[in-house]
Amino acid sequence: MDGPASKDRRKIDRALRARAARAVPGGMWGHMNAASLPPAFPQYFSRGKGSRVWDADGAEYVDFICAYGPVILGHGDEEVDAAAEAAGGGGALLTGPTEAMVELAERLVETIPAADWAMLQKNGADATTACVTIARAGTGRRKILVAKGAYHGAVPWCSPSLEGVTAEDRAHLIPYDYNDVESLGRAVEAAGGDLAGILVSAFRHDARRDQELALPAFAAAVRDACDRVDAALILDDVRAGFRIDLGGSWEPLGVRPDLSAWSKAIANGWPLAAVTGGDRFREAAAKVFVTGSFWCAPAPMAAAAATLRRLRQTDAIARMARLGERLRAGLAAAAQEHGLGLRQTGPAQMPMVLFDDDGDFRKAFLFTTETLRRGVYLHPWHNMFLSAAHDEADVDQAVAAAGPAMAEVARRFG
Amino acid sequence: MDGPASKDRRKIDRALRARAARAVPGGMWGHMNAASLPPAFPQYFSRGKGSRVWDADGAEYVDFICAYGPVILGHGDEEVDAAAEAAGGGGALLTGPTEAMVELAERLVETIPAADWAMLQKNGADATTACVTIARAGTGRRKILVAKGAYHGAVPWCSPSLEGVTAEDRAHLIPYDYNDVESLGRAVEAAGGDLAGILVSAFRHDARRDQELALPAFAAAVRDACDRVDAALILDDVRAGFRIDLGGSWEPLGVRPDLSAWSKAIANGWPLAAVTGGDRFREAAAKVFVTGSFWCAPAPMAAAAATLRRLRQTDAIARMARLGERLRAGLAAAAQEHGLGLRQTGPAQMPMVLFDDDGDFRKAFLFTTETLRRGVYLHPWHNMFLSAAHDEADVDQAVAAAGPAMAEVARRFG
Repeated sequence: MDGPASKDRRKIDRALRARAARAVPGGMWGHMNAASLPPAFPQYFSRGKGSRVWDADGAEYVDFICAYGPVILGHGDEEVDAAAEAAGGGGALLTGPTEAMVELAERLVETIPAADWAMLQKNGADATTACVTIARAGTGRRKILVAKGAYHGAVPWCSPSLEGVTAEDRAHLIPYDYNDVESLGRAVEAAGGDLAGILVSAFRHDARRDQELALPAFAAAVRDACDRVDAALILDDVRAGFRIDLGGSWEPLGVRPDLSAWSKAIANGWPLAAVTGGDRFREAAAKVFVTGSFWCAPAPMAAAAATLRRLRQTDAIARMARLGERLRAGLAAAAQEHGLGLRQTGPAQMPMVLFDDDGDFRKAFLFTTETLRRGVYLHPWHNMFLSAAHDEADVDQAVAAAGPAMAEVARRFG
Repeated sequence: MDGPASKDRRKIDRALRARAARAVPGGMWGHMNAASLPPAFPQYFSRGKGSRVWDADGAEYVDFICAYGPVILGHGDEEVDAAAEAAGGGGALLTGPTEAMVELAERLVETIPAADWAMLQKNGADATTACVTIARAGTGRRKILVAKGAYHGAVPWCSPSLEGVTAEDRAHLIPYDYNDVESLGRAVEAAGGDLAGILVSAFRHDARRDQELALPAFAAAVRDACDRVDAALILDDVRAGFRIDLGGSWEPLGVRPDLSAWSKAIANGWPLAAVTGGDRFREAAAKVFVTGSFWCAPAPMAAAAATLRRLRQTDAIARMARLGERLRAGLAAAAQEHGLGLRQTGPAQMPMVLFDDDGDFRKAFLFTTETLRRGVYLHPWHNMFLSAAHDEADVDQAVAAAGPAMAEVARRFG
């Protein structure tokens, strides 16, 4: 697929990039900017179905990104979309909420053991910001402990970039190292009598480094620290939520948060976020003022209720984990065959795949470029996502593509 | 409709409120919480079409709120919704943007004289926050001037509530009085060499008080102050955008912003927000990191392009203004007939209607309760919104309802 043919393969993508270079600053914003991916990667897509996406030029890929998490039942799930249409469709917005809001709030409370109530928003950062605001309102304190390098959204208090951010935006954040009980203890001490909450990700899923599952002793220490001073344990389940455990990603650890932030996979692609919490913070949640123009739109709520129902009634999470393990085993075997050191970390259904001795990601860029050419969209430095629409054949196609791609990496860097 | 029959009229609404009292803190959040409306107002709705909404119990109203602004062509506009469906529908979210993003960015640049580029988000507060971040990144300064009492979103730096907000969240805001050139001058002076931007609403549309159109001398002074020190004039056009002038609400004043925040009416109910800006801030806009999980969804972008096309090809804005004037004249006549002092302020297509000597809004509550009973949904203390789907008959129905409602107010308070 090299030579002139491969040049034509990207004709539409190139034309769109040229137009966007004028109409959009830098051509694209945020996490979907292909500038941080190998040059062979498309910027533009045209459609998705099940486990597959098609780029703007019509090339088909097995999609292991799933829109960076939202797609959990597969692209274009007909049952979810039908539920959203029945609630009025994506343009429906009335002069108040509909029954869909009550039904989804009840379903969340019923599904999530730590939840006595729910509130709904649009962005993951709406949810994490609301959690911090509620924790402060409920405790009358200000300090929030945040793990170094963790991603909680792209607004000034938590953005990974400091461009346009002031020191005061982060005045009351105190850093700690994820999974490090001693570091957590020092941060708690630094907060003194002003500790409002401890913010934790479901597991350590920072970009560009190995993932780390939450250690049981760390989770217990976070819960204990919050209990000692009546601060809020805030679980940021935006990225991992509904892929680890329907009841919340720390349920398997036996540790329940006071407040949880949800988004991404909650409605299989429909725009929605949620905060859930326990009765301890109900009054605080009622007195803060958080709102948005589209937060009462019924269709995404109905989509979420349908998504949760399907996740509950099927073995979706176990299936994603099983297929993730199959992918992991296949990639490990291919790496071993070619004498390459590969680190695969985190939950199998949210795989992070990094090469040894690859600080500049050159091996990863070559590897994912080679798999992309073989119809498999993998990410060189961000965790990936399985969906329930993936099947054995999708994974086997990825493993089959990984063989020659690893061979190429070994040839170039071996 | 009083007595037992009126009790049954709210059966479903009452049941939903009872369920929500358990599943949602305080029963409801934010600006759509009916707790701040007269008790007769429904909390829950079931559907909308054109100029009409139906509450959960099936009662029909002429809707003068339009979901607090987003609905500008009428509820359930078929052309807009078809464009969104053709782009994949509300659940479509791929592993990158589609052509719809480029097309909408180009359309915004083409429609808005001050815009050389555009970026897209979900909430109005995403857009205002991004504007502030871009202004700071582009100037390397920190201070933002904000009008006292103005609403720019419900996130900590600008929320109308201080619950859960810290002093540092607002450390670099300097207040001024809208339309007061001297007050603006003092705020500029207070910013010293640290002025990043001046944030202005399209006009003064604070809740619970008379609206004020932007005075030409004030707008010119804002532009001049920004030009003198190369700071950003940030126009918050989230609420008024596309109802005053398609090119931006300050176009009629001949004053162009450096950055503009848009949302609400941009896609006739589909969830979308935008920042547009001039070349002076293009590089800053490219270097800040702003993003969200659903910001690349194509359907709301296609809906926005269709909405802008319709607004451009029809006399929608003039029509809304003309019908707003008709409503204003009718309400003024009814008030006069019953000897009531009524203040109607702001652009006619975004009417604010307040009674004289009504600091506790008791007259407004009674008036809007009486019109509601007659099938007309008006707001007692927030500006309202006309849509292009309203017609003379809708306005005449409102005026006809206003007569006996004013009579009741005069009888009770006269």
